[in-house]
Amino acid sequence: MTSLPLAVTPGEPAGIGPDLVLQTAADAAWPGGLVAFADPEALARRARELGVMVTLHEWAPGAPLPSSGLPVYPVPLAQPAEAGRPDGANAAATLAALDRAVEAVLAGHCMGLVTGPLSKAVISDGTSRPFSGHTEYLAERAGATGHPVMMLIGGNLRVALVTTHLPLRAVPDAITGDKVIRVVRTTAEALIEDFAIPEPRILVTGLNPHAGEGGHLGHEEQQIIEPALERIRQELGDRAHVEGPVPGDTAFTPRCLREADTVICMYHDQGLAPLKQQAFGGAVNVSLGLPFVRTSVDHGTAFDLAASGNAGGGSFREAIALARTLAANRARATV
Amino acid sequence: MTSLPLAVTPGEPAGIGPDLVLQTAADAAWPGGLVAFADPEALARRARELGVMVTLHEWAPGAPLPSSGLPVYPVPLAQPAEAGRPDGANAAATLAALDRAVEAVLAGHCMGLVTGPLSKAVISDGTSRPFSGHTEYLAERAGATGHPVMMLIGGNLRVALVTTHLPLRAVPDAITGDKVIRVVRTTAEALIEDFAIPEPRILVTGLNPHAGEGGHLGHEEQQIIEPALERIRQELGDRAHVEGPVPGDTAFTPRCLREADTVICMYHDQGLAPLKQQAFGGAVNVSLGLPFVRTSVDHGTAFDLAASGNAGGGSFREAIALARTLAANRARATV
Repeated sequence: MTSLPLAVTPGEPAGIGPDLVLQTAADAAWPGGLVAFADPEALARRARELGVMVTLHEWAPGAPLPSSGLPVYPVPLAQPAEAGRPDGANAAATLAALDRAVEAVLAGHCMGLVTGPLSKAVISDGTSRPFSGHTEYLAERAGATGHPVMMLIGGNLRVALVTTHLPLRAVPDAITGDKVIRVVRTTAEALIEDFAIPEPRILVTGLNPHAGEGGHLGHEEQQIIEPALERIRQELGDRAHVEGPVPGDTAFTPRCLREADTVICMYHDQGLAPLKQQAFGGAVNVSLGLPFVRTSVDHGTAFDLAASGNAGGGSFREAIALARTLAANRARATV
Repeated sequence: MTSLPLAVTPGEPAGIGPDLVLQTAADAAWPGGLVAFADPEALARRARELGVMVTLHEWAPGAPLPSSGLPVYPVPLAQPAEAGRPDGANAAATLAALDRAVEAVLAGHCMGLVTGPLSKAVISDGTSRPFSGHTEYLAERAGATGHPVMMLIGGNLRVALVTTHLPLRAVPDAITGDKVIRVVRTTAEALIEDFAIPEPRILVTGLNPHAGEGGHLGHEEQQIIEPALERIRQELGDRAHVEGPVPGDTAFTPRCLREADTVICMYHDQGLAPLKQQAFGGAVNVSLGLPFVRTSVDHGTAFDLAASGNAGGGSFREAIALARTLAANRARATV
């Protein structure tokens, strides 16, 4: 299994995604094993702009990998991609590249998927359909039952989220018992199978300051989160240890983190502020609960850096390395 | 001015506050210069339980400080204080100690106030009056106009909060333009006068993920926070630099923090999770906008540690050191 290539989508063609793929492929330490799903002409142009030398080879699912250079599954854009100038006319082709990559992974031709950054606004405007994010789109394409969970990993920290990109005002009503249970279950299963952590220790935060301080600062802990955690503890039994709800502001202290393999937070900033404080530039986004391994950079399209040669590739390299590890673990777990 | 003592209230007499005061006074490196506002018999009993040797001297405002030992302004409790067993009968005396300390500071007999931890529940239940926190109580006692701002300091981080101890559900409606302006103004003035930072750089977060992402993830940034920041920028002119609203999850990355003297966050966990990740155990709470300097520990009463000898005193020592610095700066600024 692990000799299969990883599928890589550069994402928004006017952003830094193509730079990251090309710079990785041009690196002297380039280990190969990636296939880009993209427009070869757009990649060639960006390589010239960056001044990097990469030989592109057309690749089709099932074909052997070339011994050097970058294999590309061609997905033509509608318009030439100009660095820093997103064009809605290319939105459909950008999504088509993602679709082809998902098909190749599901058909067993690739071991997993690493995605570069998309612009939600460009895709939504260009396709006239709301696009709420990679994770949700991939779940739909893959026909995943259940609900994928967004996890960010940086340094020694893993943070999964119960709610992701919601206005803060909408967060409290979005926290339901069923949702908490699903997220804990999906996270526990992924930690066991993909991360190869037996009996993972999971710390779950509360919604309110001081986790509600016994009801003085909010009731969601007592009414929703505590009963949900009790139910999922019974369901998981000895397979995982679930603690919480703990206050969001002490969950990330060294003493708490020493005793946890993952923190599950109720909403975006509660989890990602501590995570990015530790790991910005090197953090990786992982979708848990999909039928295949998928990792991603933790940053956006950075239009102002496209073709500049100044795109830091730390997060992208980490995303590739993590996808390989997770795919190998999953292959072992499912043998 | 700086030769005046600091007033110290141990706070909840059944908690670790008395331990912190006594352990500090028993330390070989004890520099003196503190006056405890407390029940001398309760302190003497706790000292015996801890096995620390501290000579207590009765002190009255205006009297000279003893050359060694701990001066105590006596405020008798109603009942003997038992470590770990809070007694509502002592709530009124606990607040009375705070009142006497505030009077001594306001009358110029002490240079500032350092407070140990109180239990909101014990005070509320014991006095049959809601007690929402030290900061608000002190503002009322001191007759402070305006609204004090809660700031936490730890490591190289300073975080001030627009809202503090509110259920998350109540936060969005509590963020008003006037409130944002008041908090930025009070923070800027305190940074200039108490912290002696000329032209301080202040970073303000948004309320929603990605600071609302241009309205896609919430409207409070566009409708409330941005106009408020524009108004306070005009008011402050060159006296301070105010940036924002920035996303809460990137405000604490090293790159952002290098360019900021303080981060102002919209709510509790958004600011205090990153702060406590860096500094737990050594963070200090400061009330900005009071007519006197007041600092505090960043932790609670820890009833389970009272009289155990295991109370870490890091936050308390930092609170004392910071109060001295701020009081000296304020004295210079107001000469």
